[in-house]
Amino acid sequence: MPELRKDPITGTWVIISEERRKRPKYYQIVVDKDISTPEHCPFCPGNEAMTPPETFALRPGNPAANSTGWDLRVVPNKFPALRVEGQLRKSGEGFYDKISGIGAHEVLIDTPRHGHTWFDGDETVIRNTLLAARARVLDLKKDTRFKYIMVFKNFGPTAGASLSHSHSQLIALPVVPLRVQEEIEGARAHFERKERCIFCDIIQYESETDRRLLMENEHFIVLAPYAPRFSFELAVYPKRHEPAFESTPDHELAGLSAILTETLGRVGRLLNRPDYNLIIHNAPCRNSVGDFFHWHIEFMPVLARVAGFEWGTGFYINPISPEESVQELKAV
Amino acid sequence: MPELRKDPITGTWVIISEERRKRPKYYQIVVDKDISTPEHCPFCPGNEAMTPPETFALRPGNPAANSTGWDLRVVPNKFPALRVEGQLRKSGEGFYDKISGIGAHEVLIDTPRHGHTWFDGDETVIRNTLLAARARVLDLKKDTRFKYIMVFKNFGPTAGASLSHSHSQLIALPVVPLRVQEEIEGARAHFERKERCIFCDIIQYESETDRRLLMENEHFIVLAPYAPRFSFELAVYPKRHEPAFESTPDHELAGLSAILTETLGRVGRLLNRPDYNLIIHNAPCRNSVGDFFHWHIEFMPVLARVAGFEWGTGFYINPISPEESVQELKAV
Repeated sequence: MPELRKDPITGTWVIISEERRKRPKYYQIVVDKDISTPEHCPFCPGNEAMTPPETFALRPGNPAANSTGWDLRVVPNKFPALRVEGQLRKSGEGFYDKISGIGAHEVLIDTPRHGHTWFDGDETVIRNTLLAARARVLDLKKDTRFKYIMVFKNFGPTAGASLSHSHSQLIALPVVPLRVQEEIEGARAHFERKERCIFCDIIQYESETDRRLLMENEHFIVLAPYAPRFSFELAVYPKRHEPAFESTPDHELAGLSAILTETLGRVGRLLNRPDYNLIIHNAPCRNSVGDFFHWHIEFMPVLARVAGFEWGTGFYINPISPEESVQELKAV
Repeated sequence: MPELRKDPITGTWVIISEERRKRPKYYQIVVDKDISTPEHCPFCPGNEAMTPPETFALRPGNPAANSTGWDLRVVPNKFPALRVEGQLRKSGEGFYDKISGIGAHEVLIDTPRHGHTWFDGDETVIRNTLLAARARVLDLKKDTRFKYIMVFKNFGPTAGASLSHSHSQLIALPVVPLRVQEEIEGARAHFERKERCIFCDIIQYESETDRRLLMENEHFIVLAPYAPRFSFELAVYPKRHEPAFESTPDHELAGLSAILTETLGRVGRLLNRPDYNLIIHNAPCRNSVGDFFHWHIEFMPVLARVAGFEWGTGFYINPISPEESVQELKAV
């Protein structure tokens, strides 16, 4: 059974999940490209039996679950960091805190096409993933054991993807992670001083000054953050104040997939299709943060090594300013 | 001029340092081993002119600065993230905060031997680095512009080292980084409840239970933390309560170099000399944290990619428990 353990000093939660060691190549650095062919790929059509049974699918062509004919499938992770079964049990060891590793860990197979990527300009693939993520978050939120649900995408081996076939992931957690909690506390402090959402303030300021604005459409805006930790880091915000990703209606998700398609296209052309991490920062499941939290997406290409300086201190060195990175992305 | 910018929501500080882009290979992922030979290596004896003039050296054989005959040299980083010259200037942009990028960034060349590493069992090399780090921290602390001085070592390309010749680094900062601030706040909260140092409590508990204790000597103890973010992460604590690394006397530094030599030896044998980050967590220069902060070392081998899940949330997945990692390190 996996365990969630809390660092007694900083409050950081860690999942100790020995299950994950069944993943191949664990002790090695994975830098070689996954050269799996469609015949051996568990995410390819025809190989549905290689994954656990699906929890959701978009299958216009074939209504039978776990058969071919799908546009997108969601399946439990074969090497889950957390387990759905069991009771939520909080306990201690000495003055340490731990929680049984209850949660869900699912994989969204974005597309049946083995070599397709989000750099390739097909808006439908991105929209399908967003629709599926929304459906799964709405479903998993009903389980009161879960406090936070995170949707994210690791693309490429240096970003942590162990399979090359385009996929996203979702993890439901019994605690709210530290960084999300810090965002909430920062946003709460701003709201208490100003009675305004800090994210709404950022959107307005960046839109007016146009120094770090990459693009916008009716419903979404893409910015380079003022203090980006990584080169070419970007943030995507809904213009309408909304704490919960899963409350986004269809027409807004269409706007989001359009702006993500255009953003990924520019990043891919400028930076030669880099590996990347994309994370949806959502409100916790049952906290009342509605006035001051505003869901958003963080996008981080993997361009340089994260060095000790960063690990040790939560301090980052970035060799390109957000103003310049936006200029380069606009010009490409 | 580099800039320090603060994220308005989380409070994370970022150095925007376009200087750093002069480093070779910036936009690429550096995965190839540095194959520089002693003839072309700026850290090798005979090539002293390839570095900026030294700020400190151990040179029993030759008293002339910037010539050969040294055991260890400290030089300013040729591509510094921060600049020593200039005034500390705080300013804003809209509701954002920034500080001019004042600081120091130095390289400690651990040894004249090009291929030597800390895995090789030579205690003197490690002790020399610790002695030099102490001397430089004591000197830089006199500059009241600096609030925090961090000493760290990136070993190997996947840990962020751009040169293979064994070296450590030191950065003096005009702000206290977020993660250090979080450690201080966590330790302060514990002290307010218990009137005890949480680090001293951890040392006592781990020493008594012996579940995560790797080794100890008269002055130092090596543990796997209860909630390690990374596989085989280790922490080294001085047994005597002491907030400041630079207050460590010679005989204690000798004990530290002995225990580090033994620790690195075990890690190198078990994990095939992995790349790693080693960071000294020191007290801020002028904060009064003496009662409750306790300096220590974090050691993190680079064994698996850091995936999006971690980046987005400050939540980590670790596939090996600290109890098991200590068993494996003891058995090797």
